[in-house]
Amino acid sequence: MENGNAERGRDRLSAVTGARGEQVIESLAEICPDFGRYITEFAYGEIHLRPGLTPQQRELLIVATLAALGNAQPQLNVHLAAALKVGVSRTEIVEAMIQLSVYAGFPAALNGLWAAKAVFEQQDLAASARAQSA
Amino acid sequence: MENGNAERGRDRLSAVTGARGEQVIESLAEICPDFGRYITEFAYGEIHLRPGLTPQQRELLIVATLAALGNAQPQLNVHLAAALKVGVSRTEIVEAMIQLSVYAGFPAALNGLWAAKAVFEQQDLAASARAQSA
Amino acid sequence: MENGNAERGRDRLSAVTGARGEQVIESLAEICPDFGRYITEFAYGEIHLRPGLTPQQRELLIVATLAALGNAQPQLNVHLAAALKVGVSRTEIVEAMIQLSVYAGFPAALNGLWAAKAVFEQQDLAASARAQSA
Amino acid sequence: MENGNAERGRDRLSAVTGARGEQVIESLAEICPDFGRYITEFAYGEIHLRPGLTPQQRELLIVATLAALGNAQPQLNVHLAAALKVGVSRTEIVEAMIQLSVYAGFPAALNGLWAAKAVFEQQDLAASARAQSA
Amino acid sequence: MENGNAERGRDRLSAVTGARGEQVIESLAEICPDFGRYITEFAYGEIHLRPGLTPQQRELLIVATLAALGNAQPQLNVHLAAALKVGVSRTEIVEAMIQLSVYAGFPAALNGLWAAKAVFEQQDLAASARAQSA
Amino acid sequence: MENGNAERGRDRLSAVTGARGEQVIESLAEICPDFGRYITEFAYGEIHLRPGLTPQQRELLIVATLAALGNAQPQLNVHLAAALKVGVSRTEIVEAMIQLSVYAGFPAALNGLWAAKAVFEQQDLAASARAQSA
Repeated sequence: MENGNAERGRDRLSAVTGARGEQVIESLAEICPDFGRYITEFAYGEIHLRPGLTPQQRELLIVATLAALGNAQPQLNVHLAAALKVGVSRTEIVEAMIQLSVYAGFPAALNGLWAAKAVFEQQDLAASARAQSA
Repeated sequence: MENGNAERGRDRLSAVTGARGEQVIESLAEICPDFGRYITEFAYGEIHLRPGLTPQQRELLIVATLAALGNAQPQLNVHLAAALKVGVSRTEIVEAMIQLSVYAGFPAALNGLWAAKAVFEQQDLAASARAQSA
Repeated sequence: MENGNAERGRDRLSAVTGARGEQVIESLAEICPDFGRYITEFAYGEIHLRPGLTPQQRELLIVATLAALGNAQPQLNVHLAAALKVGVSRTEIVEAMIQLSVYAGFPAALNGLWAAKAVFEQQDLAASARAQSA
Repeated sequence: MENGNAERGRDRLSAVTGARGEQVIESLAEICPDFGRYITEFAYGEIHLRPGLTPQQRELLIVATLAALGNAQPQLNVHLAAALKVGVSRTEIVEAMIQLSVYAGFPAALNGLWAAKAVFEQQDLAASARAQSA
Repeated sequence: MENGNAERGRDRLSAVTGARGEQVIESLAEICPDFGRYITEFAYGEIHLRPGLTPQQRELLIVATLAALGNAQPQLNVHLAAALKVGVSRTEIVEAMIQLSVYAGFPAALNGLWAAKAVFEQQDLAASARAQSA
Repeated sequence: MENGNAERGRDRLSAVTGARGEQVIESLAEICPDFGRYITEFAYGEIHLRPGLTPQQRELLIVATLAALGNAQPQLNVHLAAALKVGVSRTEIVEAMIQLSVYAGFPAALNGLWAAKAVFEQQDLAASARAQSA
């Protein structure tokens, strides 16, 4: 890894996952800060910043991969919000889940759709709360 | 499913997977023609033809999902060729594999990269053979 | 798919999963009604209605597959109830879980047995409530 | 485990898997005979002999579970032959694979169907050879 | 299995998992006592007592395997406590999780680290409560 | 990552996996040299060199994890040889496979034992060839 990954990674993590990603790093502060550092420096500072795929392509791939594997619910939730944050549309997320029903089975797709539905609803509620308080 | 899925599915299957997809359907002709029909009518005639994602997006998602699951080598090979056929670039395929190393582990990414390498080399050989015979 | 799958599928879904299956379809009404349609028309209207296996055989296979994969808890719960509804015995369900301990590991079997236990207890409670109110 | 599992297990293993199962035990003779003993005494002498499911039900469940997990090709081949040996029909095997396409994805079903096809063809060849030599 | 496995297994289960393991066996008492017997006699009375690996090595392997598979949360929690009970250090557990990030992906490692963190905190709370009441 | 990971990683990769690891890096030279760099700098230069676990503990964990996941045969073969190279005993490898039969199923253990057996035999052959030529 080149120098500068730490700063670049923190910026990218924040740009992609917002407060959720920072909470993940913080949750590791006592038990294992180095793993937080690997997430920041390697997963975001190196891999996520590679050219060749747009952030939208990356997050759509991550969301589909996590839904297909089906054993990483907290990470799926973080990346559903991240996908929307970087500009993936709700339709693209829904269609990715439907497409993977063929390859990973209907339950993986259904559980992915339910996770997406919950994230969409949270965002609608938050938007509605912001509108009322404005 | 609406009528017409059979024809639409055959066209899409052929457009996406070429002779490889047809061989899959044929391989089922004796043991279980209905499953070939589900691949054609449902997987391609219905799911793959949905609006909301481009064929390039779909095939990149399929390739990443199959590499992440890691237990569908023949299908991964078919869809690596399909991804290239519909216009996904080699770089996008390689970057998708690298991205999934974070979510499904380095062996899944490495085996996916080796599968991609073999498909790229087959295509280079075929292109080189065509060039020589021209 | 032939015409009529929609109606046939709704009937079969209802016969096999009762209100639970309808709630699944309803949960998709806003985010993705087409996936609900695929469940109804393809999974139930086509696959589940195929000759060659009895509904009892199908549901026992589904319950064992879901417990072995271990990443589809909501679907396992629906199909444990469905298996009992179509006439699979509690003993058959328990024995299927024990059998899969050899192939998918003791935790998959144990989690499957716990899920079955919870469904059996819910049904006993409901039966006991019905008996008291009679 | 009660006494007698060793003998009961050997008989059952032989009845279900024929020479194939014995070759598995033999393959472990040098590196780890105890694991062969666990297969014989526990997997066959205890689990496979439990009442509550018929051998046909057990082998159909095993075949479906192995095809769904997708990472146990040698064991899938042994149990496809075992399923036929104890009286599961080819149709039941094919239908089990089709049914699991909904829960474990089309590639798992397709690879299961191809494995079944190969076992069916080997048996047809063997039957044809026996007929000719008769 | 030789005679005596039942008693040996109960002792080992209790030594390794304490009250948690006994609760697992008890939870099966009504639905399926035999599976509890297999856990006691086979998993602990036979496998866990084999020479060749220390209890510390076994529990570290079990914890890593369960975190890598990612679909056995209750068992992971039991074995995190068991690992500490038999003398595996917190550092070894944390490092095992970090090591498996390379092979099973960052989400498997992260979820394993969070499970470990929760078990460590429960133990610290219990220790602190004991200290105060002393 | 700190500077120096590249060199440290190359040394560790070579010490642990010998020529096999270098062939992996080389296989990526054309299609994706950066992923080779991540294996060297991150997987070996950073993770594998962490204090807290011995190389023997790491390789035994890696071998068990790969056998449990069951979808990374080439990596399992490399790490079986690596485990022996860093001083894990054949007995420890065999016992790790037997232990994971309880958690990941008998087929995962059996396939792991067969992979181990093949690696042991290759080494015996090589040793015997060296002895004859001496």
